[in-house]
Formats: sequence, structure tokens, C-alpha cells
Amino acid sequence: MKYQAISVAFTAFLTILVNLQANAQIQPQAMTNSGAIFPKGKRAPANNFTGAVWVQQLIEPDSAFNIPVGYVTFEPGARSYWHSHAGGQVLLALGGIGYYQERGKPIQILKKGDSVKCPPNLPHWHGASPTVGFMQVAITPNTVNGRTTWLQPVTDQEYNNVNK
Amino acid sequence: MKYQAISVAFTAFLTILVNLQANAQIQPQAMTNSGAIFPKGKRAPANNFTGAVWVQQLIEPDSAFNIPVGYVTFEPGARSYWHSHAGGQVLLALGGIGYYQERGKPIQILKKGDSVKCPPNLPHWHGASPTVGFMQVAITPNTVNGRTTWLQPVTDQEYNNVNK
Repeated sequence: MKYQAISVAFTAFLTILVNLQANAQIQPQAMTNSGAIFPKGKRAPANNFTGAVWVQQLIEPDSAFNIPVGYVTFEPGARSYWHSHAGGQVLLALGGIGYYQERGKPIQILKKGDSVKCPPNLPHWHGASPTVGFMQVAITPNTVNGRTTWLQPVTDQEYNNVNK
Repeated sequence: MKYQAISVAFTAFLTILVNLQANAQIQPQAMTNSGAIFPKGKRAPANNFTGAVWVQQLIEPDSAFNIPVGYVTFEPGARSYWHSHAGGQVLLALGGIGYYQERGKPIQILKKGDSVKCPPNLPHWHGASPTVGFMQVAITPNTVNGRTTWLQPVTDQEYNNVNK
């Protein structure tokens, strides 16, 4: 009788355990999806980026709004070429692990919730870490002054020169 | 001996179960946090908002960037007063269910991934649905033209006049 009761309790616990494990397995997937607020959009042009980069234009500039706003997804290892913006740029990190570097300064690590003001005409680049992708919103104000000047690719040596 | 083995196994399972339950209790909290990319910030002034609204300033405007960027959390039922922006405003919906209305038009429902361009000088309001909160990024460009003109509160009649 005692053995039977233990056996029943054991089976009940086993069932709960399996259910909890199933839930635990669902969680990471749900969390990954919750990070992607906007669609990935289209592949960015290969002549300005290294690796796979996706851009979804959220706001097209017009006469009232001279601020294109885009959502950019960098797959692991992907990054922009060096470039500058005549009106500067604001980056909002939405998820993953990003790299951001201004000319002459060390690479900054960007994580969810970080924001960056990149000054007008200052060469810089941004991208994902080698192992974790990166999602950002890019706001490019004052495009009346001109837009993006593209420079040379970020070399592997520059990309790997990071203090973690 | 058999009883002892079952007892040991039972205790082991109980320990795992308690740990899993502890994890399970952590998950919903973690998922809630994962929706919130930015901190909630400070309470918005009660004289421009109805209900509980929180604002985290992400980008302060300066001479190079005349675009304040803020993260706004509306608790269920909360909304701004009617207002207009001299340089217009861009809203990016990050989560929850939002309401957005321009003067003379029906209320628009905003969900995660939606973006809105609100034209310069056009009276409008935004907020959360009555039962689900709303999180948005607000970009307010061209503040060199002036900033926000606050108008009257959104009445309950206006707020409830929504086609779901």
C-alpha cells in the first residue's frame, strides 16, 4: 500500500516534471522571437557591408521628415564598412551583441537598451559580435546636409581588435 | 533496499522539481523584462497625461542632434493630452497595444512593429488600450522649429470611441 502510494506520487511528479521541462524548452524560443520587433527586411548591398546584413526601412524621409529610420539586423560576424553621415546618426540597440567604433577609439560593445550618438562626418562602423547577431534602430537626421559617405571595409584585424 | 532506492530517487526528483519550479517562476519575469528593451524611466508630468505614463530619455538634443528620442511606457488606460509638434513626430511601437489619433480621424490601433509619422503642427494624441499597456519610441525631429504644444485632455468619450 505504502509502495503503491509512493509509486502514484512518483508518477505524478514525473508528469509534472516532464511538463515543466517542456515549458522550459519553449521559453528560450519565445524569448528569441520577442526580440524581433520589426521584420528583417531586405539584404543590405554587399558593396557597403561584410557578411549578412538585413535592413527594414521604417520611415522614408520626405519634405516634413528629413530623418530616415531603419531597422538593421547583423548576423554574427557581419558589419558595415567604415562610413560617415553628414547629419550624424543615432543608434538604438534592440537586441544581441553589437560592436561600434569611431575612428581612433576602441570598439564599444553594444547591448539591448544602449543608445549611441555618432557625430556628423565622423568615420565609424557598426556590426555584430563574431558569435551573436545584433539588432538596431538607426536614425539618420538632417539628411538635408547630405547622407552617407562610404569608405573602406573593416578588416579582420580591426574587427578582432576588441577588449571583451 | 528497493524502498530506499525509490526514496533516494524520489528525493532527487523532488530537488529537481523544486529547482525547475524556481526557474519556471523566474521565466515569466524574464520574458516581461525581455519585452522592455529600455528602462521605464520617470513618471511623465500629470498635467500633460491621463493615467500612469513613464518616460526614459534616450537621446538628449544638442547642437548636432536636434532630435530628442524618448522611450514611453503607457500603463493600461493611460494616454497623452491632445498636442502637436512643430517638427512632427515619429512613433515606433515596441510592444503592447497602443491608440493613436489625429484630429478629425478615427483612432488607429498600434501594435509591435508599427510606425507612425505624425505631421508637423497636427493635433493628435497617443496612449495605451484600456486593458493592455503600450511601449513606444518617440522621435521628435526639427526641434529648432519649436517643440510640443499641449492642448486639452482626451475625454473618456473620445478615448472609448474606438472600432476594435
